[in-house]
Order: sequence, then structure tokens, then C-alpha cells
Amino acid sequence: MSIKNLLTPASIALIGASEKKGFSGWTAQNLLEKEDHMKVYFVNPTKEQVFGKKCYHALSELPEKVECIVLTVAKERVLPYIQEAGEMGIRAAVVYASGYSEEHSEEGRRMERELKETAERYEMTLLGPNCMGAFNRVDDINLLGMRDNPGVPFPGIKPSIALMGHSGALLASTSMRPGFPLAYLVSVGNGVTPLEEFIDYMVDNDDCRVIALYLEGLKRADLFVEALRKAALKRKPVVILKAGKSARTAASAASHTGSLAGSYRAFQAMCERFGVILVDSLEELICISEALTTMNGKLPANPKIVSMNSSGGFNTLVTEALDGQQIPIGEFSTEAKAEIAKYLPSFATIANPLDTTTALLGDPERVLSILRAIEKDEQVGLVMVGCDIGDSHGGFGDFAMAQAMLNGREEGLQKPYFISGLLEKTKNNTSREAFMKAGICLMPSLPTTARCLKKILDFAAFDPQSADLAPRGAGPEGHPSSSYALGEIESKELLAPCGIPTPQTVLVRDPAEIDQIGIQYPVVMKIASADITHKTNAGGVKLSIGSPEEAKAAYEEIMASCRAYDPQARLDGIQIQEQAEAGTELILGISQDAQLGPMLLVGLGGIFVEIFRDTALSPCPVDENQARTMLKSLKAYKLFTGYRGAKPLDEDAVVKAMSALSRFADEHREEIKEIDVNPIFVYEQGKGIKAVDALVVKYGERRN
Amino acid sequence: MSIKNLLTPASIALIGASEKKGFSGWTAQNLLEKEDHMKVYFVNPTKEQVFGKKCYHALSELPEKVECIVLTVAKERVLPYIQEAGEMGIRAAVVYASGYSEEHSEEGRRMERELKETAERYEMTLLGPNCMGAFNRVDDINLLGMRDNPGVPFPGIKPSIALMGHSGALLASTSMRPGFPLAYLVSVGNGVTPLEEFIDYMVDNDDCRVIALYLEGLKRADLFVEALRKAALKRKPVVILKAGKSARTAASAASHTGSLAGSYRAFQAMCERFGVILVDSLEELICISEALTTMNGKLPANPKIVSMNSSGGFNTLVTEALDGQQIPIGEFSTEAKAEIAKYLPSFATIANPLDTTTALLGDPERVLSILRAIEKDEQVGLVMVGCDIGDSHGGFGDFAMAQAMLNGREEGLQKPYFISGLLEKTKNNTSREAFMKAGICLMPSLPTTARCLKKILDFAAFDPQSADLAPRGAGPEGHPSSSYALGEIESKELLAPCGIPTPQTVLVRDPAEIDQIGIQYPVVMKIASADITHKTNAGGVKLSIGSPEEAKAAYEEIMASCRAYDPQARLDGIQIQEQAEAGTELILGISQDAQLGPMLLVGLGGIFVEIFRDTALSPCPVDENQARTMLKSLKAYKLFTGYRGAKPLDEDAVVKAMSALSRFADEHREEIKEIDVNPIFVYEQGKGIKAVDALVVKYGERRN
Repeated sequence: MSIKNLLTPASIALIGASEKKGFSGWTAQNLLEKEDHMKVYFVNPTKEQVFGKKCYHALSELPEKVECIVLTVAKERVLPYIQEAGEMGIRAAVVYASGYSEEHSEEGRRMERELKETAERYEMTLLGPNCMGAFNRVDDINLLGMRDNPGVPFPGIKPSIALMGHSGALLASTSMRPGFPLAYLVSVGNGVTPLEEFIDYMVDNDDCRVIALYLEGLKRADLFVEALRKAALKRKPVVILKAGKSARTAASAASHTGSLAGSYRAFQAMCERFGVILVDSLEELICISEALTTMNGKLPANPKIVSMNSSGGFNTLVTEALDGQQIPIGEFSTEAKAEIAKYLPSFATIANPLDTTTALLGDPERVLSILRAIEKDEQVGLVMVGCDIGDSHGGFGDFAMAQAMLNGREEGLQKPYFISGLLEKTKNNTSREAFMKAGICLMPSLPTTARCLKKILDFAAFDPQSADLAPRGAGPEGHPSSSYALGEIESKELLAPCGIPTPQTVLVRDPAEIDQIGIQYPVVMKIASADITHKTNAGGVKLSIGSPEEAKAAYEEIMASCRAYDPQARLDGIQIQEQAEAGTELILGISQDAQLGPMLLVGLGGIFVEIFRDTALSPCPVDENQARTMLKSLKAYKLFTGYRGAKPLDEDAVVKAMSALSRFADEHREEIKEIDVNPIFVYEQGKGIKAVDALVVKYGERRN
Repeated sequence: MSIKNLLTPASIALIGASEKKGFSGWTAQNLLEKEDHMKVYFVNPTKEQVFGKKCYHALSELPEKVECIVLTVAKERVLPYIQEAGEMGIRAAVVYASGYSEEHSEEGRRMERELKETAERYEMTLLGPNCMGAFNRVDDINLLGMRDNPGVPFPGIKPSIALMGHSGALLASTSMRPGFPLAYLVSVGNGVTPLEEFIDYMVDNDDCRVIALYLEGLKRADLFVEALRKAALKRKPVVILKAGKSARTAASAASHTGSLAGSYRAFQAMCERFGVILVDSLEELICISEALTTMNGKLPANPKIVSMNSSGGFNTLVTEALDGQQIPIGEFSTEAKAEIAKYLPSFATIANPLDTTTALLGDPERVLSILRAIEKDEQVGLVMVGCDIGDSHGGFGDFAMAQAMLNGREEGLQKPYFISGLLEKTKNNTSREAFMKAGICLMPSLPTTARCLKKILDFAAFDPQSADLAPRGAGPEGHPSSSYALGEIESKELLAPCGIPTPQTVLVRDPAEIDQIGIQYPVVMKIASADITHKTNAGGVKLSIGSPEEAKAAYEEIMASCRAYDPQARLDGIQIQEQAEAGTELILGISQDAQLGPMLLVGLGGIFVEIFRDTALSPCPVDENQARTMLKSLKAYKLFTGYRGAKPLDEDAVVKAMSALSRFADEHREEIKEIDVNPIFVYEQGKGIKAVDALVVKYGERRN
């Protein structure tokens, strides 16, 4: 595995070594500091010595074949070195140089393509170009092109987060957080060896317990999805900050490192499928990763949160923050209540959140007694206290709550503990160290804490079995850019295997056929002509035709009207369609995400979809349980359960149709670009559904 | 004005002075520290000396009449002292004792009522009971019942925030933020002298430039609204964190200090009317107040924000955070672009947000040149840079961006400057001081910064003229608890002065009358009976009656059916109503908020209101401009502008009806509890509206 050669090389050559401030000098200094456990060579055709160390003039002069090379040379000189190293059998390289695809020039793209082809030819892991390098705290390897190094974990804390992604500056700055338990930092830059390979590597690497990513776009969606599946089954948390949430950043992120632009919605749906923690800010990325590390695998066994605070005002704010995230706040068990009452003044109310009153402000022993009572309540998944830890309060020792938690840990209390600041105050690193060591999560201010908690609880509640039904992603090659739409009858025929009922439709080329067709009246009649797109304008549609006689008259009228509308149009006849009884309007759709493959969309009624964007999306295939979850996630789901006194709708029929359509789309992902079944009428329970209209768009060129 | 006696007393007596740890000892120590500029007396019937200072045995023994007394005695002994002080003409008192209405006991409520009546009798300002006291940095007065004092503003920074509200613990903890420019801290506790009087005082007090409130409920809505109106016209920012956002906290906050529970939605609507900054967290309360102080009255003249960051990744995050808050990010002017290009490497893209590239990382001089170019762009309202200021980076001196801003201020650049941290990192107080002095706002992490910025920009854009149309609030007394509903015809008659068209409706008591009534067919017929509430179930409703003949037959059928349904029911006849042509369904409603008086609600279609809660609310009266703004704030407003090819709807007719209804409700606020005009059909432009149904609920008992 050549990623191992890159992240834990036993020997390394720095090509372009110098004493200059900048990538070459800084990297040289970084490497010299690690010489005690790694063989380091300097290469520079014009130098004899660098920082007092012998400098070779060429790779070929080195006394051994190194495991990894780091290049600080200008971009023009990169490719020959990669080629030479490849020939020698070197399997890993770091390229800092920029000026490749990120410049959006033809020349830059060509150079990157050559670099990629060369690396692939020699099965070489190539980190970069346009990257900041890599850092490995576990094996003490530093291949970063800068002298500011990542924050050092507090003594006794095992580094265990792999922080990886596309923006080197952002990752580097983030990693400098004091005490951050970073195991690996990987800046992939333009990603000749794509980020997905590093993710896959970290899923399998037991030294990494949390994978934290800043991701601009995907290059290997198939590998990404497979890595997520493995991580889900292993319950290894993957926390992702994904650029491209707003229309503006979607475009710029994609262009930034030359990734294909998929939709954020589709990415989000894929994350949901695998229990990935998709975050909304850098702060959440770091706080959640750090909390998961601090909890050391002890996830909340239960979503019930207990909160303790030292005043009613604090309780109010905590309650609102948790309510705002729909985090359940349960009641204490009767036993816990009785026990807790022993340690509080008589006027205190024993409720969750618990106001410990000013009486306990300076009394960690009584707070600890309450923690002991809570420990016995099996329904409690997590304990959270709100207090500010900071210089301004003279350190955490003053805080009965915080001190009681520390003492509780010492005597073996096990529940997950969170401390949330009410304000963003100065955080004292001595406190951070003490809490982190005790496995107590020290979080930022309340609203952010609540957002992080919600995501952690969702991760804890995620059922990895759902990851078994794994979508495949679109694969690296994508699809042909050309596509064409099928006609309505053709579309419905193609969808027949999905078992979605459609109204009977017959194509009639002569009014005389009408008596023979055996259709249920009333019917709808529509001109069949590829040349007439605006059928209504052409007088090509008639509704509520009640009998064969009316139908024959309508046939002539429609034909006459369409001929008059466009004398050149080829008229293939008239479609006669059973007129479906009106029901509640549903929309089902399939669209192929450029990166993540076919996605199933469901929504109710045109207005809900168009004005309120009340839709659910999920990668195909979707099983019936997942389909039901999607349906229930709609706000308009209320219409299913008997809205305004109406009878409940046929949810089962919809769920079956959703699942069937998603499997169909999954199986035909190479042919079908888009499906729009709109509207489907949903009838009351037991009476099924009927798809009134359907449109299928296929990849490629129409053949007839 | 007796609030002045409380906040800036020239002489004070501490009743219950002692050396004990707790309110009495701590307050004694606090007062002794201020003896150089305030006359301090100790009173305690059982002591001769406290902390070496003479202790009097009774108020009456003091050599002068003090301006304010502070009571640290037990609650049983409070009232006699207040009475005695009142008799002596003392006009201000602080009562820390708890055990009053907040205990929800009859006894507690009674004692508080007595305290209130006594204070009112003597026109005394009484802070508390159940409070933490007050603090006045401007005049150096400390009446807090604790020894932890508020954070000291950095030297040279004028303290100017009044932080006031109901939860003493929360206010006290918040005020301890290092360098917080606090002018006044007022903990009103249960509010015998209600918070509203202090708000009003601070609006008029020029030493207070920002009013920051933690508010659980209102006691004097009329005074509150009047104070907001004054503050709006003065452009003095009022920043409020209001408890009661979620159903659970609404109840507990109201009970906490015995305030009447109004709805959060109504409170929010009132804040919008007056440009009040309503925040969602303590962090926002403090950061916005501090930023407004730091900006020193120089609000952004324009909503266009310019952002500069040192990498593409940072730019992406900034863009997403601003987009998430719908904050516009414009383009640089052509002149600014050309100027900026001079200072950036050739490969840089000159766009907003601006990536200053790694080339400028250590170069404050070039960043300053860019700031100078931006200063000349009149369209730019505010400049924001993203960078982390903290210990981990060795202080802000390393940061070209931050340094350039400081240098820019020194040479007189004036635009509002904001620095947002990307992460919540340790903030170095030395940096905070330097930035605050330079008038540069140092904000927390990105998402919180964006939320704060949005609120600051909204405040800057607020037009205080709209505050002229001031609602009145419900006043301290509220309304009778009993109420009754009018019938449909009566309701519509009552609303006639609003000029909202309704279908012609006639009450018929005999089928023979039908030929005489001269109504437009088709009609709807409904049983008129106060005893039959479920008219449809009783067979009491018939639609689409096409002629007088059909109507006569229907009359008999309805009567027979209703008699069979309920033989005891009194049947008053049948309402015959012109059947309105269907239009787009609108809902207009009036409800009286318990605290803030009548509120106008508008929403489109039952489904939108019930499932998506897509409604707008505003305090009455509402003028036509405000009504239009409400309508446009609905997501379903799209239906007005010609949705799915339909013609645009008659917006003007709706706006007129909204304004008329709101004025009607305002004028009849003493009689009318609720109005529900639902549905109103809205027709296409020029064709008006028609209210099909209306219900009015009046206060009091039905008289017939």
C-alpha cells in the first residue's frame, strides 16, 4: 500500500532542499528534526550542503532507494523527477508546487494530466500538487511545507483525528488549535491521488478513530461511497464540512480543485444513508471531532439528555437551545428524583433541566451526589451542564459543576458528560487539558453546542445495517453528455416493470378504431406528434370525453385544429387515455447526480415542491423502510394521515412505488438520466395510486 | 426621578450590614470601597461596628436622610423597613431577599403585592425582590450583592452598555466578560419596579448608548412599547434576548418572575416594528452589543459587504456563512478593482470575497493598500476579514489582515471593520483591547458572526419613521377573561366598516320569502341555529342552489334534516348566501396578545397556514406599506405574482383590507378579542376580494 510509504516512510529524499525561507527551507528543517527515527536525504543539483547536511546532486546518487520523495522544485522540474522516481520503484511523492489545474489554464490542466498519468503508471501515491503536505503524529513524521506545526495533544491524550481535505491553508490553520488530538493531517491539494484513497486508508487504520474532512468535491465517488459503507459498519465517525452549500460556492468549490460539481442536496442524502456527520461550519467540524475523541467510543446509549444549571435563567437558555434542535429532554426517573431531592434545598423543583440553585454554587460534593443519582438512571444518555470556564472566573476550580464532573470521573462514573459555555469566553488551556483527560467534552457556546449534540446523538442512533443497502455512486467516468426524452407512452411502457399503475392509454390512427379499443370512459384525448410541443395551444388536448361518439367527434376536431396550427407537422394519431379520478398529487422523480448517481425524489403537490421545496431525496436503491422515512420527513406528510377530516391516504402503495422506481433507476443507471412521474394521484388507503404522466430521459442519441 | 436615586445615590444605607459571607457582608465590602465619593451608612439593630465602621441601630438614627437603602435582611423584615423609609421620604430601595412570587405560593404572592403597593404609595423605586442589585460604572456605584464584579472596560474605552433583565445570575455571569464596556447592570428580579421603567430611563440617558436586555416577560407593555418608540426615533439600539421561544420555556419564563405570558411571535412582530434587535442567544446579545459600542455610532451606510481572506477555502466558508443569512455580497467597483489588482500577484482573481493569496500573508502594507482602495468605494458598507486571533498564533501581530486594519484606523480609514474567527480559539485580551480601541469589531466564529452581522445590517437599514405608527400594547390590566362568539351574519355586519366585500347574505324564516329576496344565484344555504354547531353533519348546508325553486325545496330538506338531527334545537331559519366564485384562498386574522394587544395575521390557503405555518404577524395598526411588506414576506407570495402561468392576483385589494382590518381592531381593542376572516377569495388583479366567512369573538358576556 503506497499511502503507507507516504505517511510513514522509513527513508525520504527532499528534492530541491535549500536553506531559503519557504517550502524548501522549512521542509528541510522539519525533516532534520526527525532524523532520529527516519533516514533523510537532501537532493539539489546546485548544492553541496544544506543546514550542514550533505546534499546529493541527483536521486540516482543516493545510497539507497528511499520510500518517499518530497519535491520543493518549480513546477517545470516536477515531472522528470516523478518519472525518474517511478523508474526506480519509489512509490510515494509530495508535490507542493502550484500552477496546475487550479489556474484554469489549458497548460495547467495538461501538466496535471501528465503528472497523474505518470503517477498511475508507476502506481505511485502522489500528494498534491498545490498542497501543504502531510503530518503524522502517530509515527512522528512531518512532511508539511511550513514551520508552524499542528497543536500538540495534551500529555496522555492519544492523538486520533485524521484531518484531511482540499484547502491546505484551512486545514493547517485549524490543526493549530492548542491541544487538538490530531493523528494525521493530509492536504491533498488538487488530488492527483484523490482524497477518497486517503479516506479509505483511514477507515482501515486503527490509529485513526475519527475522520474529519474539508471537502470541495469528489473525484472517485465510487470509492468514497465504499469507504463510507465500511466506516458505517465499523462505526468509525466520518465528519464532513462540504463546500458548495450555496449556489455561489458550489461553482467556486468545484472549480477550485477541478472536481466535478455534484449537488449539495445529493451529497447530504448520501451522508444520511451512511450516518456521516455532515456539519455546517469549521467550528462544528472541530468540536464534534474533538468530542467524539474525548468520549472515546462511549456514545450516548439513549437520546435522553439531562441538564443541570445553576439558575433558572440558564435552564431557560439550555432548554431553548435543545428544543431548537429537537433534542428530547426527558424527565428524571422516580428513583433519581427522590435521590436528587436529598441534596437540594426544599424550595428547589426537581425537573429536567435541573436548577441546582445558588445553594450548590460552591458545593461540588452535593453536585457529585446528584451525578451519582443520574448515573443509576439507565434512560439518561448524556449529561450536560452549562457553565463558563475561563480566566475571568479564575479557572474551573471555582465551579462546583465542573469540579463534580471531574471528581465523578475519578470515582468511575461513566455517562457521557458535556460542558457548554454560555458565552464564548476565554478558555483556559489548563482546564481544557483536565477535562479532555477525564473524557469530559468542553464545548463552545450554547447554540453551537446544541447543534453539535444533535449531530452526535444522530450518529449514536444511526443503524449501520442501513448501510448494507449501499448505493454505488456514479463512478469516475460519468455519463455521456447527450440525452433525449421519450414520449409519454414510451415512458410509461419503460416504467411498467416498476409496477406503478398508469391509466390505460391507446394510440388511435383512425376514428373508426375508437369503437374497438375497449377503454373506460371518460377519457382524455391528446394529439400524438413529436412536432407539436405545445399541445394545448394547438388545440391538441380534450378532457372529459364521455362516450365513443364524443370521442370520434373530438378526433376530427383535434386533427383539424392541429393541422391548422402547423400544416407541416407530422401527426401520428391521437392518444386516448382513461381519465383518472383526481387524488392527492404526488411527485416522484429520479435524477442522476453527476457524482453520486441516481437519486430518488419525492414531494407532494406541485405547490409544495415549487414554493416550499418540501421534498425528500435519497440515493438509489431505497428499500421500503427508507422510502417510508423519506415520506414521513415531508412537512406535507400530514396530508397522508387524514388531513382536515379526509381519509388517510394509501401510504403503502406510495412506499412500494418509491422503492420499485429507485431499484429500477439503480439497475438502469447507465441508460436513464432522469425520470419524472408527475403527477401521481394518491387515493385513500387501500385504493392505491395512479401515475397520470411520466417522462423518461435517456442518455445518448435517439436512434430512430 | 427616583431611578436616578437608585442608580446614582449620593448617600446610601445598608440595612442588615454584617461581616458574614453572603449578601450582607459582600454588599458591605462593595460599599466601603466607594466611600470616597458616596456617603455610606450601615444599619443593624444588633451590631455596633461592621468592618470597623460605625453601625447604627435604626434608619431613624442616621444623621441624614439617605437617597437609597439596600436591604439584606430576611424577607419577613423587609416590609417594615420599606414603610419606614417611605415615611421618611426615601425614594429608592434594593431588596435582595427571595421567597416572593417566584415561589408560586399564595403567601409569596401576597407579600409581593404588599411590597408593591407600599413602594407605589411612597413613589419609591424598588429594585427586586429576588434580585442581584445594580451596578453603575459611569458614576462608580456598586449595589451588587456579590463580590465578583463586572469585567473592567479596557482603558480608554467608554463604558456604554446597559445590561438589564430578569435573571440576576445570568446577567452577573455575562457582565464578567473581560473588557466588556458595561455602563450599567440592573437585575430587576421579580420587578416591583418593572424592567420597563429602567428601559425607559436608559432610552433617555445619554451615558447609555446600547440597551441589552434579558427579558422573561413584560409587566408594563404600554410603557415598553412607548420606550421602544422613543429609542427607535433616537436610533439607540435595543438588543433583546427574550425567553419563551419554545413552548416549554414560554410557560416557565412567565411563571419565573410572575409576568403575563404573551406569545413569542407577537413579541417578535413588535420588535420588528421598532427595529429592535431580537437575538437568539446570549452570545449574540453580547457580541452585537459590544460591536455596536465598538462601531461608536458609525453604522454601515450600505448593506454591501466586502470580505478579504487569505485563501480560497476561507472565502468559501465566508461566502456560505453570509449567503446563509441572505447578506448581500456585491462586486467591487471598477475603480476599486483596478486599484486592488496593483497589490496582488497576477494569478489572483479580483472578486468579492477577495482571496489575498499567500503572497500577502506577511505583508500588512499591501493589505493596507487594498483597504485604502476599498475606503474609496462608496458602495461598500462594511469590511470583514476572517482570521483567528489567539495565543496559538502568537498574537495578532502576525496577521497582516488584522495589522493592516489597525494601521488603517491610525491613518483615518473609517469603514466599519469586522474580524471573524474561523474557529472559537483562545482570544488574547491584549488583542481584544487593541481592536476595541481602534473601533474594529472582533467577532466569534463565522456562523455566529454572520448571524450578528445580519442583525446589525437590519438595524442600520431600519427606517425609524415606521415607528411613528406605534401600536399601544395591551396595557397593564389586560382584558376580561370571558368572551363569546358572534354568528356569521352578525360578524360580517360588524366588519362592514372595514370595507371588506362579503357575499350578500339574507336570513329567511319562511320559504315563501325566497321569491322576494333578490339574490344572485347560485347560492349557498345554511341552517341558522346557535344550537347546531356541526351544520354539515346535521344536513344543514347545501351548495350550488341554482334557482328560487331549488332553494324552496332545499329549505324544507334542510329544516327536516336538522329537526331530525336534533329535535330540541332552536332553528332560527336559513341563511341564503350568494355563492362566491372561487379564488385563491387567503386568511386574515386578528388576535389579542395578552401583553402586546391586537395583532394582524395574514396567510394564504389553509394548507399553507396549517402545514407550513407560512404566516406574517404585525401589531395593529398596520399601514398599507407595512401590510404589503407582510404579504411579500410570505413564501406563498409567489401565488400573487402569476404562479404557473396564472394571472397576478389583486394585491392592492388585499393590502387595503389588511390595513383596514388592523385599524378596526386597534380602535376596538377594548371590545374585540379575535377576528377570523377565513377564507377570503382573492381574484385576479382589478377584480378584488371576497370574504366568504368571518367570525368575531367579543370580550365579556353575551347580553341577549
